[in-house]
Amino acid sequence: MQNQELLDRIVVVLVRARNPNNIGAVARAMHDFGFRHLRLVNDYTVPFETARSAVDAGAVLAAAVEFGSVAEAVADCTLVVGTTAVGERALQHPLHALPEAATQMREHLASGGDTPQVALLFGSEKTGLSNDELSHCNWLLTIPMQEHEEVRHPSMNLGQAVAVCLWELVRRPVTQPVAGAASPVDAAELERLTRLLTDVLEQTGYTRRHPANCDDAQIRRLVLRMGLTASDVPVWMGILRQILWHAARDKG
Amino acid sequence: MQNQELLDRIVVVLVRARNPNNIGAVARAMHDFGFRHLRLVNDYTVPFETARSAVDAGAVLAAAVEFGSVAEAVADCTLVVGTTAVGERALQHPLHALPEAATQMREHLASGGDTPQVALLFGSEKTGLSNDELSHCNWLLTIPMQEHEEVRHPSMNLGQAVAVCLWELVRRPVTQPVAGAASPVDAAELERLTRLLTDVLEQTGYTRRHPANCDDAQIRRLVLRMGLTASDVPVWMGILRQILWHAARDKG
Repeated sequence: MQNQELLDRIVVVLVRARNPNNIGAVARAMHDFGFRHLRLVNDYTVPFETARSAVDAGAVLAAAVEFGSVAEAVADCTLVVGTTAVGERALQHPLHALPEAATQMREHLASGGDTPQVALLFGSEKTGLSNDELSHCNWLLTIPMQEHEEVRHPSMNLGQAVAVCLWELVRRPVTQPVAGAASPVDAAELERLTRLLTDVLEQTGYTRRHPANCDDAQIRRLVLRMGLTASDVPVWMGILRQILWHAARDKG
Repeated sequence: MQNQELLDRIVVVLVRARNPNNIGAVARAMHDFGFRHLRLVNDYTVPFETARSAVDAGAVLAAAVEFGSVAEAVADCTLVVGTTAVGERALQHPLHALPEAATQMREHLASGGDTPQVALLFGSEKTGLSNDELSHCNWLLTIPMQEHEEVRHPSMNLGQAVAVCLWELVRRPVTQPVAGAASPVDAAELERLTRLLTDVLEQTGYTRRHPANCDDAQIRRLVLRMGLTASDVPVWMGILRQILWHAARDKG
């Protein structure tokens, strides 16, 4: 899904977002997750280009396109998805929780045909999408939230809601190796460390006092549970050798 | 997982967060997803209680606890997870991408034992967690982001990063069958169909008899709910045009 061509087929549409910093936060989240097409629907011009919160997202803001109506903003889209915090509004549309909604959007994009393109609409922070704006949507998406007794209609911060939706679209459940991950330690090295620790336990008298803790398998598991990285191993080797040297010196 | 007792075993720790609005945004995301325990590590007092961005999250801020060091803030936690944008830092820790990290945190909490408690650490927006702060962590979590040539070290907005991590912890994958993929229809075409249907309703007198059903938004939703495929649209256009032609002929 991180394929740029597919990401470019998803358009984020902000309807009546008026705070430039919110628009900037949305642009930043888009940039972080690789989305490039931002559209703004407003009945007047918002000076969003100066948004301070759009660290590194200048390209998204520079390419943002303004429209005078939702109809124009989604005209070239083959699937139009509205976001809603649900609340009291009597919904006239099918409603999907985010995980299922993201699956459906991905499947729509994968369906081929005449270059499918998905619009994901977010309303103003204060009022969300109006009924008229929602009427342009094929179906609605909601981010399931915790219900609180004291608050009737929870709603998310706009930048956070966009970040969570876009993350859900790009997330890959099966973990891939991450660049910069700590180098794994091979078993031979761990075995050397296990030998060295065994020597230490013997030389320091631990084995005599606690023989029940000291069979080979127990010590090996103990070392494995240390969860060592490759760069840790020589450090631990050094510590253990120092202990051995010290123990031998005391004996001598 | 939305079980409150389990959510209460996850503690969000902000290290050197200094912008009250960022702290407020974190509190809001916590509130949205049902997390209640926020800890702040700072070497001086931050007036976070007044954060404007913490809509509805007053209870989280009111219960937030301040600590003078990471060690104190995580002292009662059985798993300490640091977040990092990776970057150039030579990592000394195992690193997991968010989906796998969330699974591991959930498994840790489900493991029972001596009331497991997980700390999730976020560093300052500017510098992230320092090597010393990272040394308190069992392992690290990163939110996989799109790589951009022009930006060396992508990093997320603090409030958005927290929202994405907490969402991943509470999300429940939904695997429901998806409706069979048919060729998509673009919104402009559906809008033409909506116009045509509106004409039909007017010409045939439906609008006069049932005005309550006929505002633009209702008709548009009606068309969207038809779930049309690309090959259906010309058929429907033809049907509606035929009706219009017939209605005009009868009049004349």
